[in-house]
Amino acid sequence: MGKRLSGIFTPMLVPLDERGDLNEPEFRRFINWLIASGVNGLYPNGSTGEFTRLTAEERRRIVRIVCDEVKGRVPVLAGAAEANVKETLAACELYHSYGATAVAIVSPFYYKLSAESVYAHFREIALHSPIDVTLYNIPMFASPIDVPTIQRLSEFERIIGIKDSTGDVAFMLRMISAVRPNRPDFTFLTGWDCVLVPMLVAGVDGGTNAASNVVPELMRRLYDLAKAGQYEPAMELQRRVLELFDLMLYQFEFPDGFRAGVEMRGFDFGRSRQPQTGSQSAERARLKDTLQCLVSDAGLVPPPPGGCPVPASGAANSAIPSKQVEQIVFDVLDILRQRGVL
Amino acid sequence: MGKRLSGIFTPMLVPLDERGDLNEPEFRRFINWLIASGVNGLYPNGSTGEFTRLTAEERRRIVRIVCDEVKGRVPVLAGAAEANVKETLAACELYHSYGATAVAIVSPFYYKLSAESVYAHFREIALHSPIDVTLYNIPMFASPIDVPTIQRLSEFERIIGIKDSTGDVAFMLRMISAVRPNRPDFTFLTGWDCVLVPMLVAGVDGGTNAASNVVPELMRRLYDLAKAGQYEPAMELQRRVLELFDLMLYQFEFPDGFRAGVEMRGFDFGRSRQPQTGSQSAERARLKDTLQCLVSDAGLVPPPPGGCPVPASGAANSAIPSKQVEQIVFDVLDILRQRGVL
Amino acid sequence: MGKRLSGIFTPMLVPLDERGDLNEPEFRRFINWLIASGVNGLYPNGSTGEFTRLTAEERRRIVRIVCDEVKGRVPVLAGAAEANVKETLAACELYHSYGATAVAIVSPFYYKLSAESVYAHFREIALHSPIDVTLYNIPMFASPIDVPTIQRLSEFERIIGIKDSTGDVAFMLRMISAVRPNRPDFTFLTGWDCVLVPMLVAGVDGGTNAASNVVPELMRRLYDLAKAGQYEPAMELQRRVLELFDLMLYQFEFPDGFRAGVEMRGFDFGRSRQPQTGSQSAERARLKDTLQCLVSDAGLVPPPPGGCPVPASGAANSAIPSKQVEQIVFDVLDILRQRGVL
Amino acid sequence: MGKRLSGIFTPMLVPLDERGDLNEPEFRRFINWLIASGVNGLYPNGSTGEFTRLTAEERRRIVRIVCDEVKGRVPVLAGAAEANVKETLAACELYHSYGATAVAIVSPFYYKLSAESVYAHFREIALHSPIDVTLYNIPMFASPIDVPTIQRLSEFERIIGIKDSTGDVAFMLRMISAVRPNRPDFTFLTGWDCVLVPMLVAGVDGGTNAASNVVPELMRRLYDLAKAGQYEPAMELQRRVLELFDLMLYQFEFPDGFRAGVEMRGFDFGRSRQPQTGSQSAERARLKDTLQCLVSDAGLVPPPPGGCPVPASGAANSAIPSKQVEQIVFDVLDILRQRGVL
Repeated sequence: MGKRLSGIFTPMLVPLDERGDLNEPEFRRFINWLIASGVNGLYPNGSTGEFTRLTAEERRRIVRIVCDEVKGRVPVLAGAAEANVKETLAACELYHSYGATAVAIVSPFYYKLSAESVYAHFREIALHSPIDVTLYNIPMFASPIDVPTIQRLSEFERIIGIKDSTGDVAFMLRMISAVRPNRPDFTFLTGWDCVLVPMLVAGVDGGTNAASNVVPELMRRLYDLAKAGQYEPAMELQRRVLELFDLMLYQFEFPDGFRAGVEMRGFDFGRSRQPQTGSQSAERARLKDTLQCLVSDAGLVPPPPGGCPVPASGAANSAIPSKQVEQIVFDVLDILRQRGVL
Repeated sequence: MGKRLSGIFTPMLVPLDERGDLNEPEFRRFINWLIASGVNGLYPNGSTGEFTRLTAEERRRIVRIVCDEVKGRVPVLAGAAEANVKETLAACELYHSYGATAVAIVSPFYYKLSAESVYAHFREIALHSPIDVTLYNIPMFASPIDVPTIQRLSEFERIIGIKDSTGDVAFMLRMISAVRPNRPDFTFLTGWDCVLVPMLVAGVDGGTNAASNVVPELMRRLYDLAKAGQYEPAMELQRRVLELFDLMLYQFEFPDGFRAGVEMRGFDFGRSRQPQTGSQSAERARLKDTLQCLVSDAGLVPPPPGGCPVPASGAANSAIPSKQVEQIVFDVLDILRQRGVL
Repeated sequence: MGKRLSGIFTPMLVPLDERGDLNEPEFRRFINWLIASGVNGLYPNGSTGEFTRLTAEERRRIVRIVCDEVKGRVPVLAGAAEANVKETLAACELYHSYGATAVAIVSPFYYKLSAESVYAHFREIALHSPIDVTLYNIPMFASPIDVPTIQRLSEFERIIGIKDSTGDVAFMLRMISAVRPNRPDFTFLTGWDCVLVPMLVAGVDGGTNAASNVVPELMRRLYDLAKAGQYEPAMELQRRVLELFDLMLYQFEFPDGFRAGVEMRGFDFGRSRQPQTGSQSAERARLKDTLQCLVSDAGLVPPPPGGCPVPASGAANSAIPSKQVEQIVFDVLDILRQRGVL
Repeated sequence: MGKRLSGIFTPMLVPLDERGDLNEPEFRRFINWLIASGVNGLYPNGSTGEFTRLTAEERRRIVRIVCDEVKGRVPVLAGAAEANVKETLAACELYHSYGATAVAIVSPFYYKLSAESVYAHFREIALHSPIDVTLYNIPMFASPIDVPTIQRLSEFERIIGIKDSTGDVAFMLRMISAVRPNRPDFTFLTGWDCVLVPMLVAGVDGGTNAASNVVPELMRRLYDLAKAGQYEPAMELQRRVLELFDLMLYQFEFPDGFRAGVEMRGFDFGRSRQPQTGSQSAERARLKDTLQCLVSDAGLVPPPPGGCPVPASGAANSAIPSKQVEQIVFDVLDILRQRGVL
């Protein structure tokens, strides 16, 4: 019976050059920076890594580079989901030969499968994979893995854990209660950065957190504090991470908000393969400045050239009284009406 | 600036007699038992109290009885939502005269309102209510109250807190971050019993927990442990509460699973006003036995007359290997086919 | 075996006076205007009638007035849902004594019930109601009634039909296929005005259409054309109704967009009991003008005092090229930024 | 300005051999049978064709075979969605060189994109594709394309139509109203077989219907009847198609129910790449017999060897009174309980 994976695993963003191809030197530099910054493991080809926007060949190249550059310094959890079971097993074999620690396989997506089919899918993989497998549950994008299914799948020794991105603490508790009695070695990781501390209280082993691309030091510190039972300072950090995470997640098309964050840390990650309109590009530029203001508060980066707004007394958001906002909205609507849009 | 509400508030179930009318003596006995069992406050006319299945007159009678019986021993948070703002304000006035501590008002339901209308609704109430108001957010049943709206509403002093039943820890953190800087006196309560400990870590003041109708002692102990920073034993209890809560919530139509639980504690609560079919009544009888087995483990009640199943090694649920279950399902399907149902 | 209900039933809006009470003279005037305008039946206390925002007493008064004023000229389908089965049956008895043709009972709401409980609820009503019952399925507001449940319920003779507000033509076809073979007298009505013609092709008997509060003449003409097999001119009208319906439904909190429409026809319906903010009131005033322009096209009302915009060649909506819209949005965002909102 | 596509386009299933590879001879035989059976066009690499379970190379091979075998007899609409815009454009170029009529491109999936990003994605494709493009909207699997976005995208001449699989007639009417005034040549196709007649009444040009893999003759007849204004016999067929479609869609994991249907017509399509458990395989065998009974009614195939059940008077489904079903369910639950499952 193996040891659980634990700590902060980075679901790595992928730097692209000006032609939209993988920027290998920058990627290698990023790998080393993450390790130096304290992350406990690396997770290429996850959702943050835009694995669906890569070709099968690119996904293989990425895992090869990561394993080659890491050289065993931290565990590598390699995303191995391909078009079907046969292709997925081929990737498992290859990543095993590269020296990956385990693979992570997202539940089948596009078609929304029944629990029975999700079980059949992972059973087939568990029976034939030469490398340990962690499941990946992300119902907002892929077929859900429910509690009875994770329990059935935990009967296979080859399946060693699950990464769950629901952010639902009750669901995590249900999974842990259903699986741990028979599989004390089973790993539970959360992909929902903004509730990492409550999840650690609930018993998870760590997280695969997109925010650790941007603030690996903070994520590691938060993890260490919580593991040491220092929940109060851990929650202080958690609130900061929440603000940062929400900004990167909701203010822009995922994962491009996180890409803007990595750029702030001094990396050239290029543009996503997902095209943007002009107004989106302008929004993204503004987002980067706001991010930089947030992170400069933590002393990790200097403030942006234009400086940061001074927060009003109380929360920044409530600096403008509702009544004033109402007036502004009226004015804007008037402009739109004058121009014949409304 | 007032003191926050805190601890375990019981959203009280309502006992009915054989004619379906309020059983007042049993209700008074229940009130005293809850207080003696350690709950920190009472909350009549909540969702657990089936307020929508009562007439307006019955709701008033219930609050009158609670205030009369409690006599100030614990705070009373009275559910005051009525058909419209005018009727709701009339209830606020009445409950104020009865001596209630505050009212709880659920967001408008049936119609799903925009955030702007939810704001307008509560603003009107805040401007005219003679008694402090807590908001009640339960998006699975009523119009959602989002973070910007709770922030806008916290500008009114008359609004002193929110009860949130989403169970979403991230959402709770967002609300707290948005409101507390300007309103340190604002109360946050969670209605999702199965994540009470993680919610307390996240900063809530307590819970309005349906499970406290059934195991008030456990809920109070859990709260006290968490507040004392004893998270490990608190999580032990949390896991037990999760199992109980899931059973009462998902195995039967809400809140009748909880009604079965209260009966187990020696109260005669009668049948819900929601009719049941014969097969539902049979299910409910079985549920009561399962509940009793769970709660007898905690030493609060004796096991049911028929005894309890001995859990197999490992989790009870996984006692039967998947393969055997598959065979049984085949057999059942065959029976159904022989009888021409499939 | 009875005759099916058929044609356009108006789910009547309720006029309120300046104190927010029922405006009885205006209501009686409205009843007569609807009948004179050709609607085939009246349906008080539906969702459009904001039945949940009325007191139980007001609901009874409304049905009494409608039955009294109609005097048998058209069938009356009276909404009879109350807090629980006992209260609902009391309303059934009363409305029967008033001379209503049948009652319409919405599926239980607030709590989301299982199919089994929905069945138990209506079975209880079917067994004891002295008046014919139509079910009312509106899953966006209330517990859904699924196809097996409607089939089981159609075994009760007292249940004579269903009003369905999903707008899902496939679902309607499934219900009709499941029920009509054994119950050729069962009535199917759709509450989704914008697909009335396709629904009539699919076999429904008519509609309970909110738009018939505003343009009863158009709805009746549309129905008559479709019944006569004149689908092309019927679809012409359908497209106009779609535009009107979408405007009244989506541009404003339901049913206040329809209230604005009725005012345009010369009735004084007052304000909804749902409070509005200042910006909402301004929006509502603009909506009324837009509506009047749409309806004046059909020759039913004169254009508003300020006149109507001349549609550009092609669709009005696409008069402004996307690029120009993008520029305007930039300008607006700039204003918001200058004022510190973004 | 081109001519609209019209009629029944078959979103082709793909036959696999015993090793799970494309069965090319059977595929060519299937192409010819579909054309001989009257379908108006072929649509390889759609959702029914399980395009996401194929490798990029297999998708290219499939389109090559279809174009080669069709030899211009009917239009070919080739599914061209690949991992990103660059790969998608490469497929567009290739399919253009193969002689495809147009490509169909599903909205980006896995990540749920905003309307603005969906627009940016298709704009990029519209600007660079050498072949006409139809959009493919299937919100249950991919990012939704809303009405304003389809209107903006219809400004590009390269975009000539949309296939919509929502089954929402109101949504279709809204799209048609928004686009046709400026683009009378724009094609609207529905992918929701069970409402094809109401959709034709609403103005669509045809359908890309999975059921036409199984009963191409019926689908073509239904289309011809509706186009000739023979709505009554068309609706007779529609009801039959609904029953068949529901059975193939909901009784089994999509699209394997349709695969079972094609086998019934004498083709050897092998097993899906999605693994199945033993109980699923047994279900699938039973489904095939039920399907054959349904289709033998239409005279297209003989009944299955075991014969078909004689429908009771009234609908087959209601042959067993509810009370008897209740008893059977009790018996089954008892068995399960005796075996310790419940």
